[in-house]
Parts: sequence; structure tokens; C-alpha cells
Amino acid sequence: MTLAGRVTSEGELIQRYLAPLACTNAGAFGLRDDAALLNIAQPLVMTMDAIAEGVHFLPGDPAADIGWKAVAVNVSDLIAKGATPRAYLMALSFPEAPTHDWMADFARGLGEAQSAFGITLIGGDTDRRPGPITITITAIGAAASGGSTGRHMVGRGTARPGLLLYVTGTLGDAALGLVVRRREPRAAGWGLDAAQHAFLEASYLRPRPPLALAPLLVEYAAAAMDLSDGLAKDLGRMAAASGVSAVVDLSRLPLSEPVTRALAVDASVVSAIVAGGDDYQVLCAVSHEHAADFEAAAHRCGVRLACIGAMGSGAGVTIRDGAGRAVAFGATGYDHF
Amino acid sequence: MTLAGRVTSEGELIQRYLAPLACTNAGAFGLRDDAALLNIAQPLVMTMDAIAEGVHFLPGDPAADIGWKAVAVNVSDLIAKGATPRAYLMALSFPEAPTHDWMADFARGLGEAQSAFGITLIGGDTDRRPGPITITITAIGAAASGGSTGRHMVGRGTARPGLLLYVTGTLGDAALGLVVRRREPRAAGWGLDAAQHAFLEASYLRPRPPLALAPLLVEYAAAAMDLSDGLAKDLGRMAAASGVSAVVDLSRLPLSEPVTRALAVDASVVSAIVAGGDDYQVLCAVSHEHAADFEAAAHRCGVRLACIGAMGSGAGVTIRDGAGRAVAFGATGYDHF
Repeated sequence: MTLAGRVTSEGELIQRYLAPLACTNAGAFGLRDDAALLNIAQPLVMTMDAIAEGVHFLPGDPAADIGWKAVAVNVSDLIAKGATPRAYLMALSFPEAPTHDWMADFARGLGEAQSAFGITLIGGDTDRRPGPITITITAIGAAASGGSTGRHMVGRGTARPGLLLYVTGTLGDAALGLVVRRREPRAAGWGLDAAQHAFLEASYLRPRPPLALAPLLVEYAAAAMDLSDGLAKDLGRMAAASGVSAVVDLSRLPLSEPVTRALAVDASVVSAIVAGGDDYQVLCAVSHEHAADFEAAAHRCGVRLACIGAMGSGAGVTIRDGAGRAVAFGATGYDHF
Repeated sequence: MTLAGRVTSEGELIQRYLAPLACTNAGAFGLRDDAALLNIAQPLVMTMDAIAEGVHFLPGDPAADIGWKAVAVNVSDLIAKGATPRAYLMALSFPEAPTHDWMADFARGLGEAQSAFGITLIGGDTDRRPGPITITITAIGAAASGGSTGRHMVGRGTARPGLLLYVTGTLGDAALGLVVRRREPRAAGWGLDAAQHAFLEASYLRPRPPLALAPLLVEYAAAAMDLSDGLAKDLGRMAAASGVSAVVDLSRLPLSEPVTRALAVDASVVSAIVAGGDDYQVLCAVSHEHAADFEAAAHRCGVRLACIGAMGSGAGVTIRDGAGRAVAFGATGYDHF
């Protein structure tokens, strides 16, 4: 049953909509205490990301999708570090009390993400203050046991020259989905049908980081990070942090059918593929020696994987076309500042 | 050296001002990775609280004090749960890039709080978006080992009828400090000198939750929580969560010298004492059997402790005056919604 009107108190918001999301974890104390107790006998990987209306999601986005995205963008970091998502704390900020409808939808989206990624709400904070609706999440994952590699976490700055570069999934779907959602005129020129528009929009609204890849990264990847601000920018960060260069072949970038079609009629789509944000796929560097095993294991887990280039000595990121020429892009990914 | 003007990039902000705060924890990876690794072989207590300009601090408050407060209000929850503060993640949101001056001061305040409370920055997030400057922190403490009581965390809802009620420190200092800081006319009527004004303002700007009390709570307290929204409201929460009632004697509330003086000439000050927020002291319930040991241990640790009343059966909070009459208050503490 959904109530009419707006939520009237912090207690009602927490107990009606959020506490049910915390009921499977005894350490959450039904969200009735001031803190949570987390008893995981492993090292933990922790990450914290906020999403805000008008910045990371659009004012009209469905509340369930906003809830999903808030969890998914954090889970994405855990996965890329090789960790298994376990729990999260969430701080909500509203300029005015949300409606019961909105909160019910939002909580449903959180719950769907919890089921998809195996994570549970254990605590948080709720406040009313001016500014956009903001959802800030701290996500906690169980780190790899250390096993054969002795590593608990896959770093960003540990790539070496000669390693192969992989990405999961397909690139640019979310960036084009944003164009579609904004009803930008150029989307009409792509000649896509309603189902293809829906696919792109869903990629923007509900990022699906590749959960199954996490343990494989620990086993096979020398370095990894998630793609949130666009391949060019994020690969630049990995290369810089590792003190290496990177070369990527444009022709090897994995594209969905709708993006392939849009690119065929609109050359500017390449910017969305290379520099668009919100992919929430994994970028990783793997040695030649491990490449075949890594690919086979990813295939068994149902994770789409593409080898897109390699790391080299020196510095900088080169993205080259079919003729081997470096391609320059005006936009180089989303900047938070 | 402080640079002129505003911080120009997220990377500069993180590496110049925040990374030095993370340098003592290897699992923070110099804030250069996407996540932190936390390897504490104990259960963890976690809490998440945000402070925002215009809500939890005033626009003109010194940046160092804002940094201190953001850490202290989170540490306060850890202490009240009996946990030892260890690490925190911090999400910053600015409507416009901060100046170098502001960031240098803010980082200094964070660093002072880190030293005072034994906590280290390990990760976070930085964004520019509309709305007030907001600092959201997730704080992590090492939980009690379980020891003789078998408990890892001191709950809020575990008080029983007959237990004695204690608070640490003095009450109302921060609430009066806010009145002083706002230059409200009634502050002039209190007849306080500059040093007393400074004391009250400092109580508002730099809450000092009683770190040394944490292990004693685990040993002696049946229930505990921190006082952030005013004694009346927070005690009401503890009583409701525990299914008990509470009676407090106004005359036993611990007051600082400036608050005592203000109260002597302005009867309305009692509202600030009972229902004002921002005390960040600990409220706890202790059995008669443990009372003497608890008091002695707190004394040895230098924590001021006052027995202010007791829990009873039934429900509700009664605050009574010297004649035993229940006192009614219009304002019943800060509401977040």
C-alpha cells in the first residue's frame, strides 16, 4: 500500500522504507541504533560515492532507477577492486520531504540492487537541506583472501608495460542513453527503434557492473578500475598512476548493436564511446601469460570481455584508428570539478 | 605556503589537502586508488553523519572548526557505542571550488580531530554541485572485543527499568554558544565576559566527545547513545527504543559556569540545556551494582560524569524541577526533517 502525500518525519522514512532493506543483517539493528556492527572476518574494501540530481541523474528519472544507480556506482568500485559486495551505509539529503510514492519506488530500486549485487543496507543518515536530492553511499566489500597472489585488492597503479588491456561489457551505451533521455535532436538521426532507445536509456538508468568478474580480477589482473568518467580519462588515470603509457585500438572497442548503428550514421558518436561517462564496466590490465585463462574464466562466468589494446613504456594514452593514426577527442571525460 | 585563489581540480584538492591526512594508513593508498583496504581483525562499528552549511554549521564558521566538527560528530557515535575510532571516509560537496585558504584551514581542522580522536582518512569522494557545502563522513571504529560481557557494541535500546542515567561533560554549552555566535540580543543579557563567550562558542564549534569513555561503556553501561539533538529528544529515543520510561532531575544536570550564570538571569536558558542540540556528550544507563565502579573509572580517565536520573517502567520522559514537578518544554530538540 502506498500512502498519499509526503513523508512527515525522519522516523517514518527510516522505519517504513529503509528498515525493511536492513532486516537481513543483524548488525543493522533494524536501523534503530546510532551505528551498525559489521562482523566480517576478512579485510574489507571500502568506497564512497555520491549521486546528485542534475549531476548524476536527471530530475525526471524514476526513483527506483535512482536507488539502483546509487548502489550500482558504488558496487562498481568494489567489483573492480576484486571485492565481494556485502553492506552499505547511505546518507540521504532532500530539499523537501519526499512523497510516499517516491520513497516507495526509491526503496524498491535499492532492494533490486541489493538482490542483484548481494549487498545489504546497514546504516546511514537522513537530512533535509537545500540543494539537489543527493544519495551518498559508503559500500563495503569482503576483500580477496590473498590466496595465491597474496593480494587483498587489485590496485589502479600497478599496471606494467606489455600488459594487455581489457574492458567488460560494451562502451558508450549509457552516454548515448543520456542523449536519448534528454531528447537531444541528434538522437533522432540515428534511426534507432523504440527497443534500441529503451536499451540505451536502461544502460544510463541502471548500470550493471560485472559482479562475477571480481574474483577473476584478483586471480588474473595486475591492475583494474571501473569506468565511470569515460574510457579515455579513466585509462589516463590508470596509466598515470602506473607510470606507463597505453595504446587502444578504436576498432576493438566493444559496442552494442544500437551504438554500432548510431556510429555508422553519426561520426560524433565516437566521442560518447571513448569519452562518455557512466559505463560502469571494468578496465583491467592482464599479462599475456594469463590472458587465455582470464578470457576463458570470464566466458564461463558470462562476462563479456574485449581486449582493446596494451600498456607500454612512457606516458599518455593513444587511441588509434584502423589505419594506426592517433585520434584526438575534444571531450576527455567527465570532470567532477 | 598557502596559494591564492581557488582550487582548480579535484586531483589538486585531493593530493594537496587530503592525501596528507591519509598518509599513515597504507590501506588508503595515498587516496590514489578507487577504494580503501581496511584490515582490522575485529568486528567494526560504523556510522555515517553529514554536516551542511546553514544546518549544522554557520556560513561564517572557520573552516578548521568545520573540519573538526565533521569528524567529531561521527566519532561521537562510535564512542557512545563503545568503539575505538580508527578510520573514516569523507564525501565533500561544494557549490563552487573552495579557495586554497579555506581548504588549508579545513584540512588543518580535520588533522587536529584526527590527532585528538586517533582516526585517519582512508577514502572518499569530492563533487561540485549546487546547495550548501556538505561534509558527509562514514566513521569506522574497532568494536569491543566482547570480553566479559560478550557484547561488541553498546546498544540504544537495551536500557531496563531501575537503571541509573548518566551524562558526560556539561549540557547546553553548544546551544548557548550558537546563540552567542548568532549575536542574538538575549546573549547580551546573560552578563558573561569575553572568555565565557569564547568558551560557549568553542563548545559549539569544536564538540569534544569523551573518547576515554568508550571502553568503560562496554564494561559498565547497559545502554548508551550520544547527545546530538538535545537531552529531552535523545533520552526519549533511548526510552522508546528500550520500552522504558525515564525521569530526570533538572537540578542534577551538569552545567558549566557560563551556563549556570546565564540560567540565573534568564529562565529560558533551561530550554537550551534540556532541548538544545550539539552537546555530543554521552547518555548512558548503568545498573546500581556497577554505578560506583563506573564513576570511579570515569574519574580516573578524566571524564566528567553526572547521574541525572533513572529509568522506570512504562513510557515517556519526565524532567522534574526541585519540587518534583514535571517541567514542560516547548522545544523538544532538533528535528532533521
